Amino acid sequence: MEIKVLKDILSANEQIAASNHQKLEEHGVFSVNLMASPGAGKTSLVLQTIRAVAGKTRVGVIEGDVSSSLDSELIAREDVPVIQINTGGECHLDASMVRNALENLPLADIDLLLVENVGNLICPAEFNIGEHLKVVISSVPEGDDKPFKYPTMFIIADAVVINKTDLLPHLQFDTARFTGAVQGINQKAPVFTLSCTTGDGLDSWTSWLLGRMETERAGGAA
Amino acid sequence: MEIKVLKDILSANEQIAASNHQKLEEHGVFSVNLMASPGAGKTSLVLQTIRAVAGKTRVGVIEGDVSSSLDSELIAREDVPVIQINTGGECHLDASMVRNALENLPLADIDLLLVENVGNLICPAEFNIGEHLKVVISSVPEGDDKPFKYPTMFIIADAVVINKTDLLPHLQFDTARFTGAVQGINQKAPVFTLSCTTGDGLDSWTSWLLGRMETERAGGAA
Repeated sequence: MEIKVLKDILSANEQIAASNHQKLEEHGVFSVNLMASPGAGKTSLVLQTIRAVAGKTRVGVIEGDVSSSLDSELIAREDVPVIQINTGGECHLDASMVRNALENLPLADIDLLLVENVGNLICPAEFNIGEHLKVVISSVPEGDDKPFKYPTMFIIADAVVINKTDLLPHLQFDTARFTGAVQGINQKAPVFTLSCTTGDGLDSWTSWLLGRMETERAGGAA
Repeated sequence: MEIKVLKDILSANEQIAASNHQKLEEHGVFSVNLMASPGAGKTSLVLQTIRAVAGKTRVGVIEGDVSSSLDSELIAREDVPVIQINTGGECHLDASMVRNALENLPLADIDLLLVENVGNLICPAEFNIGEHLKVVISSVPEGDDKPFKYPTMFIIADAVVINKTDLLPHLQFDTARFTGAVQGINQKAPVFTLSCTTGDGLDSWTSWLLGRMETERAGGAA
């Protein structure tokens, strides 16, 4: 019974996700679903990416949180369009929530839509929202065992970001162990190591992101 | 439809949780449900607590993870009884999983049962497992805004631990902001600041924990 209902929910979600995707395509908007544990640095990566691509592409943001508008207030200071979704207890964004947000964003003025999902390394992996790319952010203080413990998120990722490399001197974190674990379950996803605090490594990430966006626009081998 | 089924699940869970609680009481086992984001330091706190109370009380452990037995392997080295629950995708422990684990633990040899929940700051808050105490662990690198963003977990907590205080010199984390946010939604929960790496602050935590255990044994004003 429980499984049947869950399947129905996922199937309904897939239909809305496909509709979201079509809408984004029609407006020429490239969209990225950013997923991570609480506090891994999703908002920091959104902020740094906005600053890095300023003048090259027009960014819009959807902020997903269980509660509060703290993150969207930070984003709004960057003078980009932003919508806050408060899930009110739900542990992930679903396609329906994102559909509502899309109706309230100026899609004609957006080339790159960054969607910050709810802080959760498990549940968001189950729900497509119509995005072009799924990106997982992990951070050095969380430890190098996360791909072993939360494999689904790393299996479905189009890219993996290791954030907070500035803390490497203060922690035991084996980057090779982490990267090897990712590659063991996902051969396609590049792994970026960076620090949103110092800016180290951000160039590789933004170059890759803009490259994927151009490929998509040029006709789209995803 | 979805809500009705969820209510049924929660109601069934409550019944099993009550049965678990009764079983723990019958065996004189005091149980703690440890919840946190991935990488906040749940396993480290379990390890440090085992070492701190050694000779004073007999500890048993249930390790909950989506996948892998990495944590239970670490715990087993401490020579305490441990059971690993792999949820196989589920984002939380439920009472039924814990019931199965209890059947496989030597309860007569355990005074204090530490249950490490799945790394998730949202979903585990919805599921009682029959525990005596719910403890939330947050960590300095996650940021001082977590009680604002994930309020339910902090509302239901009997205690809050801020771990990784050794990283305070390297991060912007306002302990007063975090503690104030907790106290704004939860007047009963003490907030402990500690570092499982250096051991700083562990004494207050273990003293409080053993005190709660004694109170419960003495007749139990919870």
